[in-house]
Amino acid sequence: MSSAKEVGLTARKEDNFSEWYGQLVLKSGLADYGSTKGALILRPYGYSIWELFRETLDKLLRDTGHENGFLPVMIPETLLKKEEEHFRGFNSEVFWVTKAGDNELSEKLALRPTSETIAYSAFARWISSYRDLPFKINFWNTALRAEIKATKPLIRNSEFLWQEGHTVHESREDASKEVDLILKLYKKLIEEYFAIPVRQGLKSSQEKFVGAESTASLESLMGDGRALQMATSHHLGQNFAKPFEIKYLGRDNVEHYAWQTSWGTSWRLIGALVMVHGDNKGLILPPNISPIQVIIIPIHKKADEELVKDHSKNVLQELEQANIRAKIDERVEYTAGWKFNDWELRGVPLRINIGQRDIEKDKLEMSRRDTFEKITVERKDLVSIVNRLLTSIQKDLFTKASEFLSHNTTSAPDFETFKEIITTKGGFIAAAWCGSDYCETQIKEQSGADIRIIPSDVDSASNRAECVFCRQKPTIIVLFARAY
Amino acid sequence: MSSAKEVGLTARKEDNFSEWYGQLVLKSGLADYGSTKGALILRPYGYSIWELFRETLDKLLRDTGHENGFLPVMIPETLLKKEEEHFRGFNSEVFWVTKAGDNELSEKLALRPTSETIAYSAFARWISSYRDLPFKINFWNTALRAEIKATKPLIRNSEFLWQEGHTVHESREDASKEVDLILKLYKKLIEEYFAIPVRQGLKSSQEKFVGAESTASLESLMGDGRALQMATSHHLGQNFAKPFEIKYLGRDNVEHYAWQTSWGTSWRLIGALVMVHGDNKGLILPPNISPIQVIIIPIHKKADEELVKDHSKNVLQELEQANIRAKIDERVEYTAGWKFNDWELRGVPLRINIGQRDIEKDKLEMSRRDTFEKITVERKDLVSIVNRLLTSIQKDLFTKASEFLSHNTTSAPDFETFKEIITTKGGFIAAAWCGSDYCETQIKEQSGADIRIIPSDVDSASNRAECVFCRQKPTIIVLFARAY
Repeated sequence: MSSAKEVGLTARKEDNFSEWYGQLVLKSGLADYGSTKGALILRPYGYSIWELFRETLDKLLRDTGHENGFLPVMIPETLLKKEEEHFRGFNSEVFWVTKAGDNELSEKLALRPTSETIAYSAFARWISSYRDLPFKINFWNTALRAEIKATKPLIRNSEFLWQEGHTVHESREDASKEVDLILKLYKKLIEEYFAIPVRQGLKSSQEKFVGAESTASLESLMGDGRALQMATSHHLGQNFAKPFEIKYLGRDNVEHYAWQTSWGTSWRLIGALVMVHGDNKGLILPPNISPIQVIIIPIHKKADEELVKDHSKNVLQELEQANIRAKIDERVEYTAGWKFNDWELRGVPLRINIGQRDIEKDKLEMSRRDTFEKITVERKDLVSIVNRLLTSIQKDLFTKASEFLSHNTTSAPDFETFKEIITTKGGFIAAAWCGSDYCETQIKEQSGADIRIIPSDVDSASNRAECVFCRQKPTIIVLFARAY
Repeated sequence: MSSAKEVGLTARKEDNFSEWYGQLVLKSGLADYGSTKGALILRPYGYSIWELFRETLDKLLRDTGHENGFLPVMIPETLLKKEEEHFRGFNSEVFWVTKAGDNELSEKLALRPTSETIAYSAFARWISSYRDLPFKINFWNTALRAEIKATKPLIRNSEFLWQEGHTVHESREDASKEVDLILKLYKKLIEEYFAIPVRQGLKSSQEKFVGAESTASLESLMGDGRALQMATSHHLGQNFAKPFEIKYLGRDNVEHYAWQTSWGTSWRLIGALVMVHGDNKGLILPPNISPIQVIIIPIHKKADEELVKDHSKNVLQELEQANIRAKIDERVEYTAGWKFNDWELRGVPLRINIGQRDIEKDKLEMSRRDTFEKITVERKDLVSIVNRLLTSIQKDLFTKASEFLSHNTTSAPDFETFKEIITTKGGFIAAAWCGSDYCETQIKEQSGADIRIIPSDVDSASNRAECVFCRQKPTIIVLFARAY
């Protein structure tokens, strides 16, 4: 391990956001680069956040009747091509397996960019009656995409950890309800655990998932004013059910094509954590998604070593009994100062220093990662104060991010203003759009901003405004942004 | 879902073991075939066993200081070739990615057959001092191998779920201790959860992991007398540390090459569950690894529906409060008889039928999956009796499998006897071996049996026996078997 100086950040968030982000992901021990373009390794600290993320979302999904399964990563070319629009959408970024050992394969195999095709060819075998519906399955796996754009750790990688859910229903309405349910679960995960506010709405037809009837999306703003798509939930209609022949015998004793949804979110939420909450000292993890909520640092000389260690263990036990995720930093090779920096870099929300003087006075010294505020409390109030502080940190991080989101959501009456906002402060721009592909494309080409969502809370007065690009009516108000 | 008749097994374990196994894996809802040769899909029931398996082993690993991480699946050819012997061993079964979209890649990428090479190129960056050691990391992922032999679901697939652990140590002895620790954890997992007895020992140099100094293995016998390698733990010496330059600054202030281990087990343990415990009615799951330990079947007419349902819920609650994994089969579309068959097929260890008559008498009727024994108990004794029965089923399954293992472990004084045993009853044959590659190869070619392990509990008198093939001395006693 290197010295404290080497591990600290040398780039500042406000000066060079991209460099700061890259350094932070690496130096906080979240991740390391892999050996091929765009590949990423998760180190234990990063993976422990992923595990908490998975556990949290998994519980939300189980409680609403979803089960997990496993699918192979290789998809035969013919199967991937079965839904043509879908294939065209992914074709350019598919990795192809063409050889096994020294032998050419008779059919090349795609590494899954997403699993609709392989899943649905199995669903067709499993589903035959309305009694098999709704069928709701989820896969915790990875997806692989040869990224043409610049790669970015946790945000755009050649392989990424995600979950993909797939459901089958008796009716269009049942599928719509599932799309909405999933959005609600994602919103809960992202806002209440990751402390990141989201805006919700539909994608334009250019931006929707290829093969879907419609795509609902949750979007957030990162610390540099760029938008990030956090999670999506697709209504597939019968677009896949027909080519894959997913049919069921209905309650009316007639065979019907089924209705489907698919939805996913990925480790990019961990990237968003970094970009939304981090500062120039390192990560700041919201307590609800932090693998370690409280780090205990014993500070002692030889003489009081045993006293301090025993006391630290008591504190740890008491916290653990109250279901607080706590840990003692027992490393002997490092100074207390080094440890403070290290845990600040790793973003642990609360630190407790334990030294002889405080023990004698029955006190504890705590320090908040988000505000650096120091609080001295009575030893007996340990659990109640820690719980109060963790709740407060969680809430304050969400409030701060929400304020940032409001301050960086503006509106633009004309395209000149639009372009100026985009190139200076960034953020979301609420603007009127006539609904044409032409204007959408022109705006994107001339400003770099695309339509992130058509918000669900539409202002009914909005169709009286003129399109920000072509000045025609009627319009809807949509959110534009430059995005990752 | 199909009718009870269609879902039942048509092959018998004693008549056609292989067909019986294949039907059972599919019809019990564990798995389904994928769309490419040797590919397998895990359906929710199979995946829930995998989740319990993962959770159980994960806890054993965490409690002994191992952490989890994530590695990409694609390995550049140059990296995979870095340890030559290792590469030669895997070369013929590597899947190669050669294209992305329509473009040829400049270097082809292997899908990991195992991750030593990609992991160790990262370890070399992470480890610099004795303070970074021991370094103990585990990966829950899949491995991919183009199988040349016949594929078999859960036993030999082109992609399989497994875990691979990798550790780095200061000394040969520390690495040896890790190899032994891991074997102990695997043995606990397999014997105490899967209820499958194992034999433990070293692999011969022909059979060891390519690149390892030595491979320790746990082997079991399946219901047809074939052996199955259950888990392996490798001492890598410095074989990878040297080409990958994993070096650390020692306590002596001098740089040293590190010492390493790697180890793994896979979803084949679920295949072993089927082959060891299953019968002609279906799976029999040992309670400790069964996602559902108790299935509750409400049996009612319209008149007593509410009474029976309420009572079933009370029983469920009481079991759940006692940390017993229980479930009510509330499906209205199926008869009680159909449900009995279904849960027998799925191997749930204990069934409780709940009907009006028993409720009135304050009784419960239970049925053991392993023995089909029916037990009527007082309602108030629910939890204590269920706990006693689950413990008893777990123990009885292990005892039965242990007896099978003993009865099918024989010894052979000469090669004629050896061949006769192998072709008739199968099982393990303890026989003397001179240690030569020649005899090992001849025995394999002429009998189909190979050396499964050199047992650790060696009989010191054994070196006075003559080699079962060449009749030379000295020898060691090893276990031979035909294996999957």
